[in-house]
Amino acid sequence: MTYCLAMRLDEGLVFLSDTRTNAGVDNVGTYRKLHVFQPAPDRVFVIQSAGSLATTQQVLDRVEQDLETSGEHESLATVSELFEAALYLGRLNREVAQSHAEALGDAATATLILGGQIKGSRPDILLVYPEGNYIHASTDRPFLQIGESKYGKFMLELAVAAGVGLVTAGKIALTSMLSTAHANLSVGPPYDVAIYRNGSLQLQELRIEADSPFLAELSQAWLTHLLETIGDLPPLPPDVLPRP
Amino acid sequence: MTYCLAMRLDEGLVFLSDTRTNAGVDNVGTYRKLHVFQPAPDRVFVIQSAGSLATTQQVLDRVEQDLETSGEHESLATVSELFEAALYLGRLNREVAQSHAEALGDAATATLILGGQIKGSRPDILLVYPEGNYIHASTDRPFLQIGESKYGKFMLELAVAAGVGLVTAGKIALTSMLSTAHANLSVGPPYDVAIYRNGSLQLQELRIEADSPFLAELSQAWLTHLLETIGDLPPLPPDVLPRP
Repeated sequence: MTYCLAMRLDEGLVFLSDTRTNAGVDNVGTYRKLHVFQPAPDRVFVIQSAGSLATTQQVLDRVEQDLETSGEHESLATVSELFEAALYLGRLNREVAQSHAEALGDAATATLILGGQIKGSRPDILLVYPEGNYIHASTDRPFLQIGESKYGKFMLELAVAAGVGLVTAGKIALTSMLSTAHANLSVGPPYDVAIYRNGSLQLQELRIEADSPFLAELSQAWLTHLLETIGDLPPLPPDVLPRP
Repeated sequence: MTYCLAMRLDEGLVFLSDTRTNAGVDNVGTYRKLHVFQPAPDRVFVIQSAGSLATTQQVLDRVEQDLETSGEHESLATVSELFEAALYLGRLNREVAQSHAEALGDAATATLILGGQIKGSRPDILLVYPEGNYIHASTDRPFLQIGESKYGKFMLELAVAAGVGLVTAGKIALTSMLSTAHANLSVGPPYDVAIYRNGSLQLQELRIEADSPFLAELSQAWLTHLLETIGDLPPLPPDVLPRP
């Protein structure tokens, strides 16, 4: 499986993806699921993917081909709004999946997150369904998840409730990822992070390797603090605690 | 849906169930999913259920009927080991589901957690599958979950890693429940807690109501401490943080 998430904050956008792929437990691989496109100085896009790896790769190949070939056709360079980019990706995604549907059926589908900014429009994150349609993240719930989304959802709800900034959101994204990877073997490092500050039209990217000292430190601190947190919680009502 | 969990610790057993049932979002109810049976002074059982509410109730009715009617038949009073109780419940569960399968198919199945102690045997928790077979919780992973198990799994893994005691385990169980209920509308209060100290042959039970001051205090403390925890985590590597 996969776990990708994106958060939209007042200051900017945070993207995080794992890299584990598997076709059965005896066929586990590492593939990038977070892809950055900057086809012109006035626009930057992040595409995250869950579902069929083959379909995703073919979609990305077609995105690149559309950018590299001249002509009147639509591409990430020609769209003028993020929602148009979402529809464009949705169309490619659907076409690719349909071209393999006879052999693969639903197994050929992929789900995408698209985020970024086109100059003059507001930065945003959108979920692109296998059917080709899309939704924006909402104001009340300004994050999106694809893949194994349940394990780490609580952390994102928490960030929303607290209205955190970009730095804290990055940490929350990583703890959401660690909680997921800890509970589900099909999600794992390395992790790809991209952080976007609104209006900058530049993405900061980072790959966090499985053996990175930062990841070890973060993971250890997260566990230690969580246990302290639990220790500090109010005691259960006395009548429920059996005496030794 | 449902979320029930059980933990087996060195000191004893912890059980926690939500009470929300739903047959569509416009048909939400509150039903107990944690049931205690003490058919004789030498034995105590907890049964937790997920899946068809109708099947669960019929199974529990038959468990009681078997205890109340005299004769040579098997019941929770006659079994001499927990695994026999699991097989007994598995048989009832399968018979009930099969009796409704023509009308309902798989929708009539239920999954159970059975826990407790029979004097002379060690306390344990077992998962009883709809097919009638069972597994014990393992030494490496001494907890069981049924229903919406993904959201709160991380907290239980954490308890295992830390080798916590009965009191802390109770808090971890509740934070696991709060994380689940926060992320998934189909899980909700009141919550039923049962705590068993090994060898006591007595269960302490508690219902935590939605409006209980304890639950409000716990929920608030959990959110506050978690945010502090995130604030205390090591900073992201500087090259990933876009400068304002």
